[in-house]
Amino acid sequence: LRLKSPERERLFQSPSLEATFGGGEANVAVSLSLLGKKTSFVTALPSNPLGEQAIRNLQSYGVDTSHIIRAGQRIGIYFLETGANQRPSLVVYDREHTAISQVSPGDIPWDQIFFQAGWFHLTGITPALSQNAADTALEAVKKASAAGVTVSIDLNYRKKLWNYGKQPVEVMNELVKHAKVIIANEEDIQKTLNITEETGQVTDGHLDIQGYKHLLTKVKKTYPNLEAIAITLRESISADHNGWSAIAQTSQGFFQSKKFQLTHIVDRVGGGDSFSAGFIFGMIEFPEDHQKALDFATAASALKHSISGDFNLVTRKEVEALLAGDGSGRVQR
Amino acid sequence: LRLKSPERERLFQSPSLEATFGGGEANVAVSLSLLGKKTSFVTALPSNPLGEQAIRNLQSYGVDTSHIIRAGQRIGIYFLETGANQRPSLVVYDREHTAISQVSPGDIPWDQIFFQAGWFHLTGITPALSQNAADTALEAVKKASAAGVTVSIDLNYRKKLWNYGKQPVEVMNELVKHAKVIIANEEDIQKTLNITEETGQVTDGHLDIQGYKHLLTKVKKTYPNLEAIAITLRESISADHNGWSAIAQTSQGFFQSKKFQLTHIVDRVGGGDSFSAGFIFGMIEFPEDHQKALDFATAASALKHSISGDFNLVTRKEVEALLAGDGSGRVQR
Amino acid sequence: LRLKSPERERLFQSPSLEATFGGGEANVAVSLSLLGKKTSFVTALPSNPLGEQAIRNLQSYGVDTSHIIRAGQRIGIYFLETGANQRPSLVVYDREHTAISQVSPGDIPWDQIFFQAGWFHLTGITPALSQNAADTALEAVKKASAAGVTVSIDLNYRKKLWNYGKQPVEVMNELVKHAKVIIANEEDIQKTLNITEETGQVTDGHLDIQGYKHLLTKVKKTYPNLEAIAITLRESISADHNGWSAIAQTSQGFFQSKKFQLTHIVDRVGGGDSFSAGFIFGMIEFPEDHQKALDFATAASALKHSISGDFNLVTRKEVEALLAGDGSGRVQR
Amino acid sequence: LRLKSPERERLFQSPSLEATFGGGEANVAVSLSLLGKKTSFVTALPSNPLGEQAIRNLQSYGVDTSHIIRAGQRIGIYFLETGANQRPSLVVYDREHTAISQVSPGDIPWDQIFFQAGWFHLTGITPALSQNAADTALEAVKKASAAGVTVSIDLNYRKKLWNYGKQPVEVMNELVKHAKVIIANEEDIQKTLNITEETGQVTDGHLDIQGYKHLLTKVKKTYPNLEAIAITLRESISADHNGWSAIAQTSQGFFQSKKFQLTHIVDRVGGGDSFSAGFIFGMIEFPEDHQKALDFATAASALKHSISGDFNLVTRKEVEALLAGDGSGRVQR
Amino acid sequence: LRLKSPERERLFQSPSLEATFGGGEANVAVSLSLLGKKTSFVTALPSNPLGEQAIRNLQSYGVDTSHIIRAGQRIGIYFLETGANQRPSLVVYDREHTAISQVSPGDIPWDQIFFQAGWFHLTGITPALSQNAADTALEAVKKASAAGVTVSIDLNYRKKLWNYGKQPVEVMNELVKHAKVIIANEEDIQKTLNITEETGQVTDGHLDIQGYKHLLTKVKKTYPNLEAIAITLRESISADHNGWSAIAQTSQGFFQSKKFQLTHIVDRVGGGDSFSAGFIFGMIEFPEDHQKALDFATAASALKHSISGDFNLVTRKEVEALLAGDGSGRVQR
Amino acid sequence: LRLKSPERERLFQSPSLEATFGGGEANVAVSLSLLGKKTSFVTALPSNPLGEQAIRNLQSYGVDTSHIIRAGQRIGIYFLETGANQRPSLVVYDREHTAISQVSPGDIPWDQIFFQAGWFHLTGITPALSQNAADTALEAVKKASAAGVTVSIDLNYRKKLWNYGKQPVEVMNELVKHAKVIIANEEDIQKTLNITEETGQVTDGHLDIQGYKHLLTKVKKTYPNLEAIAITLRESISADHNGWSAIAQTSQGFFQSKKFQLTHIVDRVGGGDSFSAGFIFGMIEFPEDHQKALDFATAASALKHSISGDFNLVTRKEVEALLAGDGSGRVQR
Repeated sequence: LRLKSPERERLFQSPSLEATFGGGEANVAVSLSLLGKKTSFVTALPSNPLGEQAIRNLQSYGVDTSHIIRAGQRIGIYFLETGANQRPSLVVYDREHTAISQVSPGDIPWDQIFFQAGWFHLTGITPALSQNAADTALEAVKKASAAGVTVSIDLNYRKKLWNYGKQPVEVMNELVKHAKVIIANEEDIQKTLNITEETGQVTDGHLDIQGYKHLLTKVKKTYPNLEAIAITLRESISADHNGWSAIAQTSQGFFQSKKFQLTHIVDRVGGGDSFSAGFIFGMIEFPEDHQKALDFATAASALKHSISGDFNLVTRKEVEALLAGDGSGRVQR
Repeated sequence: LRLKSPERERLFQSPSLEATFGGGEANVAVSLSLLGKKTSFVTALPSNPLGEQAIRNLQSYGVDTSHIIRAGQRIGIYFLETGANQRPSLVVYDREHTAISQVSPGDIPWDQIFFQAGWFHLTGITPALSQNAADTALEAVKKASAAGVTVSIDLNYRKKLWNYGKQPVEVMNELVKHAKVIIANEEDIQKTLNITEETGQVTDGHLDIQGYKHLLTKVKKTYPNLEAIAITLRESISADHNGWSAIAQTSQGFFQSKKFQLTHIVDRVGGGDSFSAGFIFGMIEFPEDHQKALDFATAASALKHSISGDFNLVTRKEVEALLAGDGSGRVQR
Repeated sequence: LRLKSPERERLFQSPSLEATFGGGEANVAVSLSLLGKKTSFVTALPSNPLGEQAIRNLQSYGVDTSHIIRAGQRIGIYFLETGANQRPSLVVYDREHTAISQVSPGDIPWDQIFFQAGWFHLTGITPALSQNAADTALEAVKKASAAGVTVSIDLNYRKKLWNYGKQPVEVMNELVKHAKVIIANEEDIQKTLNITEETGQVTDGHLDIQGYKHLLTKVKKTYPNLEAIAITLRESISADHNGWSAIAQTSQGFFQSKKFQLTHIVDRVGGGDSFSAGFIFGMIEFPEDHQKALDFATAASALKHSISGDFNLVTRKEVEALLAGDGSGRVQR
Repeated sequence: LRLKSPERERLFQSPSLEATFGGGEANVAVSLSLLGKKTSFVTALPSNPLGEQAIRNLQSYGVDTSHIIRAGQRIGIYFLETGANQRPSLVVYDREHTAISQVSPGDIPWDQIFFQAGWFHLTGITPALSQNAADTALEAVKKASAAGVTVSIDLNYRKKLWNYGKQPVEVMNELVKHAKVIIANEEDIQKTLNITEETGQVTDGHLDIQGYKHLLTKVKKTYPNLEAIAITLRESISADHNGWSAIAQTSQGFFQSKKFQLTHIVDRVGGGDSFSAGFIFGMIEFPEDHQKALDFATAASALKHSISGDFNLVTRKEVEALLAGDGSGRVQR
Repeated sequence: LRLKSPERERLFQSPSLEATFGGGEANVAVSLSLLGKKTSFVTALPSNPLGEQAIRNLQSYGVDTSHIIRAGQRIGIYFLETGANQRPSLVVYDREHTAISQVSPGDIPWDQIFFQAGWFHLTGITPALSQNAADTALEAVKKASAAGVTVSIDLNYRKKLWNYGKQPVEVMNELVKHAKVIIANEEDIQKTLNITEETGQVTDGHLDIQGYKHLLTKVKKTYPNLEAIAITLRESISADHNGWSAIAQTSQGFFQSKKFQLTHIVDRVGGGDSFSAGFIFGMIEFPEDHQKALDFATAASALKHSISGDFNLVTRKEVEALLAGDGSGRVQR
Repeated sequence: LRLKSPERERLFQSPSLEATFGGGEANVAVSLSLLGKKTSFVTALPSNPLGEQAIRNLQSYGVDTSHIIRAGQRIGIYFLETGANQRPSLVVYDREHTAISQVSPGDIPWDQIFFQAGWFHLTGITPALSQNAADTALEAVKKASAAGVTVSIDLNYRKKLWNYGKQPVEVMNELVKHAKVIIANEEDIQKTLNITEETGQVTDGHLDIQGYKHLLTKVKKTYPNLEAIAITLRESISADHNGWSAIAQTSQGFFQSKKFQLTHIVDRVGGGDSFSAGFIFGMIEFPEDHQKALDFATAASALKHSISGDFNLVTRKEVEALLAGDGSGRVQR
C-alpha cells in the first residue's frame, strides 16, 4: 500500500493521501502483464479489506493472483512525498511485521507455481525484510532454477530496510548465484555484492563508460552463472529532471542505450521496476537482439517517469512508438 | 493515524484516503483543550514525519505535547469506512508493534508529569495493545493516584485489539481499582469488568432504566473507590440514526440525561471520547451539580456526531447553546 | 463571494473552501432567469478578478449584468459551514467596506434601468450594510415606484449586519412604504417592522395559523400600500430536517401552501430567496390565482433545499412536476 | 461508463464528474462474483482506452472478461445526478450507436460460452437499445435455453431508451418465453409484458399484497415456462428515503420478504441489479428454500443502497450478517 | 464536452474526470469575447442538461448563444489525458452522431446571422464530422462571403475524425476558395490542401524559413482570394516543452513572430484556436500593422499554454503586457 | 488568510480555493520555529472562527501565539493564482480595514513581549497597511531597540498596498534607523529607501556584482546602524524557472552565496520570508561565520520554492543536507 501526499505537498500538509498499490515485484508483474505477457504474482497478504483490495488491484491489470497466500496481519505500507527541484522525494517505510516478512520456507507451493512458468523475478527488497523472507527467497530461486525457470533479480538496495541483523552481501550473494539475469544500479552492486569500480559521480551528469565496463566484467567474473547484467544509469540533475539510460553486458556483448532527458518527471518511484519488466520482456521477445531488449527496457522505463503511481501503465505499442523515434510528445488525435 | 475512505465509500473504492489523527486519549485531550482546559497528552511516537505530524496536529488545538516521548518505529493506524443505513462502519486496525505498545514501565517520567496535574484520563484501548502497555498503564494510574491526581478510565472494550494473551478482565479490574471515575457502555462493563445485568436490547430503542440502576449499583459495590460511573446509551437505529443519552451514578446520586435524536450522523467515531471529555469538564467545572456535568457531557458528545474526524471540534459556548435548548439547527447569522 | 467548508466540515477543518457566488438579490435574479424571466442584476462590484468572476457567474445563468457599476475595492464575502443534526450552520460575514456598501444615491442610473422594467426586488440585506446603501435603496424604491415598476422587498433581517448605527425599523419602515409586495418570516416582521403577534414556537413544529392571520392583518393595516404579504414558515427540527410551507395575504385573500418535509437538506442558504423568486414568478405568471403563485413559490423553494450553493438551479418544468404531485424522488430515466 | 456529478450536485455544477463503470448486466456479474460465484460478462466494447478500462474494472472484481468482443466505436455512457428530498435523481443517456447496440446475431460465440455455463442473465436494457441488440438477445436466450442453461431476465423498463421503433412488448414477450426466472417491478411488468393489476400506489407507502398476488398469477399463467417471478417493491418516500422489500412466486409458492427502511440512501442506481444478483445467488445456493433466496436478495440489495456506484460491493458474509438481524449499523471494531 | 483525467494521469487512473467545455470554434469565440470583441457562437446542441450547460458556459464568457439551434441527441465528447516528457497527450474522440454532425443546409438562418456580422470563423473540424456538416459549412462560407463578411478558416486537420468517406482535400479546397484568411500548420496545409514544401523537421527545433516562404507562396498562388495566411510553428521538444512562434504572408508582406519557449506547458489543447482568436483580433484592431497582429496572436497563444482547459482565459491587457516584454513571470502584487 | 486557485488554474476557474494561512512575519515565525528556534508571533486577529483558525495553524508549527491580541473585524485576505511560463502569478489583496491595520501604539504590550526576547523581525508589509500600523511598527522597533533586542526588517515593497497617503520612504527610513539587520531586494531598496545604483536587469540573468557592492555601500553609509544588509537576487526566467542567490554586506565583509537553479518552482510566494528566517537563524547560530549564515539562508529559501503554501516546511537537517551538496533530488529511502 502506497500512501502519497497530493501533488508536490509534504506529508500531511493536506489531510489526504493518495492510496494506490505497488512495490518491487508487483510493479514488474503489472508492467509485464500490460506489455502482453501472462504473469502471476506470488506473495502473502492478510485476510482483510486491505489485502482484498491489493488483489483486486492486481487483477484489474490481468495479473494472476491465485498463488497469493492469505496470512499474517499486516500489509506493507510506505508513505511517499514527491520532491521538487533540490528537495528530494521522501519515503517512510512501515513494512515491519508484514505478512510477506513472516512467510517461511514451505509456506508457498513453489513446485506447483513453477510447473508451467518460464521466468521468475525477485527484487532485493524481499530478502531485506526479515530472515524468514530471505530464506523463502532463497528457497524460491533454488526451486525455480531447478525447474528450469529463468531467474532474474533486481538487486534493489534499500538502506532503510535491512534491519534484521544480516548484511545485504551475506544474503544477496547466495541468491545471485542462482540467477541468470541481474538488474541493478551501481550503488546496488556495491552494497549488495560488494563489488566496486571507480565510475565517477552519477550526479554530475558525466558517465565513465569504461569504468562501467570494468564493473560489469568484475560482476560477470564473480558470478559466471549470469547471462545478462543490466545497469540503469540515472543522472539526478534535480528531483524533476533526470537523465535516464542503461547499459548491459550479456552473452551477446556490451550494449548501451540511448539517453532520455526526463525534464518534467511525474513520478520516478517504480522507474527501476519498469526497467526490469521491460528488460525481461525484451529478453523473451527479442532473444537474438539484446540491443533491442535494452532499448525497449530503457524506453519503457523512460515513459514510466511520466506516470503517477508505482505501475508503468503503458502498452507495448506505446513503447514501440517511442523507440521508433517519437519522443516529441505531440498530441495524438 | 486515521485513514478514512471518502464520504460513504468503501475502503479503496477511490484511490484516496482522508488522513487525520485521533485515538481514544488524544480525542479526550483535544476536546478538553477546546473546551478551555489546559491539557497535556502523554504517549510515545516514532521519530519520523508521521510522529512529527501527529504532534503538530495536537499542538494546533493547544494540547501540550512536551511529555510525548519519541521511541519505536510505528505509529498506530486505523482504516475506517463510514457505514450508511444497515451497513455498519468498518474499522481495520493496524496497531500492532506501535511505539505506544512497546513502552515499558519506567519509560515515562510520570512523577514529573503528575507534579502539577489535577486529572489523569486513560482508556481501555491502551492496555489492550500489549503487556508492556498494560503494565505502563497500571504504573501510571498508581502514580497518579498516589500523587493525588484524579484518575478516570473509559473502559472502551475493543474486541479486535485484545490479542496478546490476557483477558480484558484480568487487566482492567486492577486498573479500575485506582480510578475515581469510570465511563463506559454496558458492553464495556460486561467485557472488561465481568459485571452483567439484564437491561434489554439497546438496539431496539427501549431502555430498562431500572436494570441500568442495578448494574451501576453492582459496579459501585465491586469498586467502592469509584466516585462516579457514567454510562453512555447508544440506540442504534441505523448507521445514520442513533439515539444518544447517558446515565450516571455519582456521590450525588443517580442522574439521567436528555436523549438526543442523532438522525443524520456525520461521524460517530470518537463519540464516546467526546463524552469522556465533556464529563471530565463537567465534573471539574460543576462539582456541585452532577446533573449539569452529565448533561454537558451528553450535549457535547451529541454535537460530536455532527463533526467529521475523531476530534470534537466544539467550544464550551456551543455546548452551552445546545444545553440552553437550541437544538433546532437554525443558521447562525 | 461565498466560501464554504467542504461537506459538513467546520471552517478550515480541511485547507479548502468551495468558492461560489451568491447573495440575496443575486439569488433571486438567477432563479427568476432560470424560471424563464428576463432579469437584470444591479449592484456595484470592484474592478478586479473577483468582481469579474461574479459577473461571469451571473451571465452564465442568463442574468443581464450590463447595469452593474464597477467601483470600490471589495466584494462582499461570507464564510459558511453547514451544520448537521443539532449543530447549526454558521455564517461569518466579511461584508464591511464592500463596493455595494459605498454606493451613494446618484451613482446608479435608476431612471434608465427602470425604463423598460416591470418589477424591482430588494432585500433587507442591502440597507443593513451602511447608511449609503440604505439611502440608495430608498432612492431605488422611490424611483421604481414612480416609474410604475412593482416593488417587492424581502425583509430578510440579519442581526450580524446592522452595525452602522441605525435600527432596522428606522430604515425598513420607509422602504416598505414604497413596496407592493413583501416577503418575510415572522422574526423579520418583528425585527424590521416592529410588528408582533403571538404565533407560537416555530421550532416545535406547531403553527398557530390564527395568530399568523392576525399578524398579516396588522401588517396590512400598517402598510395599506401592500398588495401581497407572503410569509415563509420554517420548522427547524434539526439542521438536516425542516418543515417548509408558506402563507400569504393578498388582494385575493388568505392562502396557505402545502407543507414539505425537507428531511435531508443539502443546503438551506438561499431558501428564502428562492421563495421570493418563485413568488414573484407566480404573481406575474398566475395573476388571477394567488394560491397557485404561493404553491409555486413554496415548491420551488422546497427544491432549493436539495441543491448546494445559494442559487436555486431548477427549471419551471421541475417545479411544476413537483406541484403536480411527484415528490417521491424516483429516478427519472 | 457512468459519469456522475459530485455528491448531490446538479450536472456540471462543478467541473468534475465521477467516472465509474456500470450497467444492468455488468452490475449483476460483479455482484455475483463478489458473492463468490464464477461469472463471465459478455458484451461488445470498442478497442480504445475506454473499452480497455471497462474491462480492467470488471477484472478487478474477478469477473471473467475473455468473452467480451472488441468492436464498434462507442461505449455506452450515462450521466447521472443524485437527487435529494423531493428532487429526483436524473439520468441522461448517451447510449445510441454504441458497440453493444451494433452487435448482430452470429457475432458472439454463444455455443462456446454456454458450454460450461449454468445460468444466463439478461436485462431489458439490452433489447431496448436497437433491433440488432434485441435480435442478439433473442439468439442468446434461445441458445442458452437449448443448452440447458437457466435463463433469467430482469425486465427493467427504461422509457428513454426504446427509440428504434419497436414496442417493448413486441420484443420482451418473445424473450420471456425462454426464461425460467424473471425479476421486475410492477411498472416493468405492465410496460414490457402488458399485464396489469390494480395494486395501489407504491409511492404512498401502502402495498396491496392481494393485488400483487393476482398480478403474479397472471404472469405465471401467461408464461407457464417461468419457475420464479420476483418483484421488488420500492416505496419512494423521497429521493433519500425508500422502503424496500420484495415478493416472489416460485415453484415453492408465494413469498414475501422483510421490508427495509432505507432512510439515508447513498446511491439507488443499480439497486434492482443487486437484487437480481442476490436472487440468482439465492436460487443457486438455497434451491430448497426460496424464502431464504428472496430474503438474501432483498438484504443484499438493501445494502446496495448504502454504496456509491452501480456495483454492490458487499460480500456474502455481510449480507448474511444483515439477514441474521444486525441492521443497526453499529461500528465493527 | 471535454473530459480530462486529473493532472498528468492516464484516463481512468482515478475515477474522476475534469468536465469542461471546448472545441475549435467555441474556443475562438470565447477568446475573442474575453479580448473584448462581441462574438456569437453558432452550432447545434441537444435539448438536454449537457446542451444547456454548454450554453451556460459560453454565456459566462459573454459569448452570444442566441443563434445556437437545439436539435439532435448528442453533444460531441472528447476524452483527454495530458502527456508528460516523451509521453504524448492522448485524445479519444466520441463525436459521431452528434447534433452538429446532423445539421443540414437550411437548418441555420445564416442570412439573419450575417446581417450585422463582420467576421465568420470556421475550423476544419466541423467539415470533418459528416457530409451534412461539410455541406452546411460550405453553405455558411458562401453566404458569409456573399454578405461581405470576412471568412477565416483554421484548416485544423484531425486524422481521427475524417471517417465519412470524403478526403479532406475534396472538402477543404472548396471551403478555402471563399475565405480571406486561413490559419494552419504545415501538416494541415499538406493534408487538407495537398500543398507541400520541404521545410525540415519541426520536431528537431530547426526551422527552414525559406521553405516556409515557398510554401506560403504556393498557397497564395493556389488561392488568390486569400488576403492572409498564418502558420503556427510548434517545435515539440517534449510534451511539456515546446517552442512556439508563427509566420504570416499577408497583403502587407511576410512576417515572422518572436519565438516563445514554453518550458512548462499546462495545457496545449486549444493552443491553435487561441492563435486564431488572437490573429482575428489583431487583423481587426491593427489593420495597418500585420506584424503587430501576428505578434499579438503569438503572444496570446503562448499564454494559452499556461492555462488549463480549452479556453484562453486571458485579457487584452495581459497579452499586451507580454508583448511589452514582460515574460519573466514575476508575481504581480 | 491565503486563498489560492487549484494547481495552475486562474482564480475561480474551478469553484474551489485552497485555504491556508500565511503572510510576511508569520512566514518568518513558522520557519524559524521549524528550524528549531523558540518564536512568538505578535499581531491582532478578530475574535471569530477565522482568527481562531489562524492561531491554531501557527500553534501547530510550535509558534507561541499568546501575544496575539483579539481585536477588529477582519483578517487580511489575499487571493492568489500561480502563473506558468510567461504568465505571472497574480495576487489580489483584500487587506483593508483588517485587525492589524487598526492596531494603534499602546495596544500591544511591547515591554512585556521584549522582556525575554532576543530578536524582533518586521516586514515592510505592516507599515504599508495604514498610518496606525506604521505608528505601531515604529513604536515596536524603538522599544525593541531600547530593550537590547536585535531588530531586523525585511523591506518588502508592495506597490498595491501603500494606499493611505504616505510614501514608503517617509515611513521606512525612520524604521530602518532602529534596525541592525535589513533584508531586501534591489527594488525594495530603491522604493523604500530611495537609494539606487545601476546594477543591470535581474530579468536577463546577468548580475553586476560590482554594482551591487556599490549599492550596499551606499545603504551602509546612509544607515550606519546596520550590521548586516542581505540582498536576495531573483532572476526570473519564467514563472516556473528562477535563478536564486543572495549577497550580503555585514560587519565581517561582503559575501556571495551559491546560485540555485529553481527550474520547477512549486510556489514562490514566501520565498523572501524563508530567506529572512534562514538569515536570522544563521546570524544567531553562526555568528562567527556570516558566509555560512548567508549560505544557510539561501539554501533554506531555495527549498521553499519546492513547497506549496506560504510556509517553508523544512527542517534544519534538510537545509544542511542541501548545503552539504545534495541538491540532486534523489529519493530518500
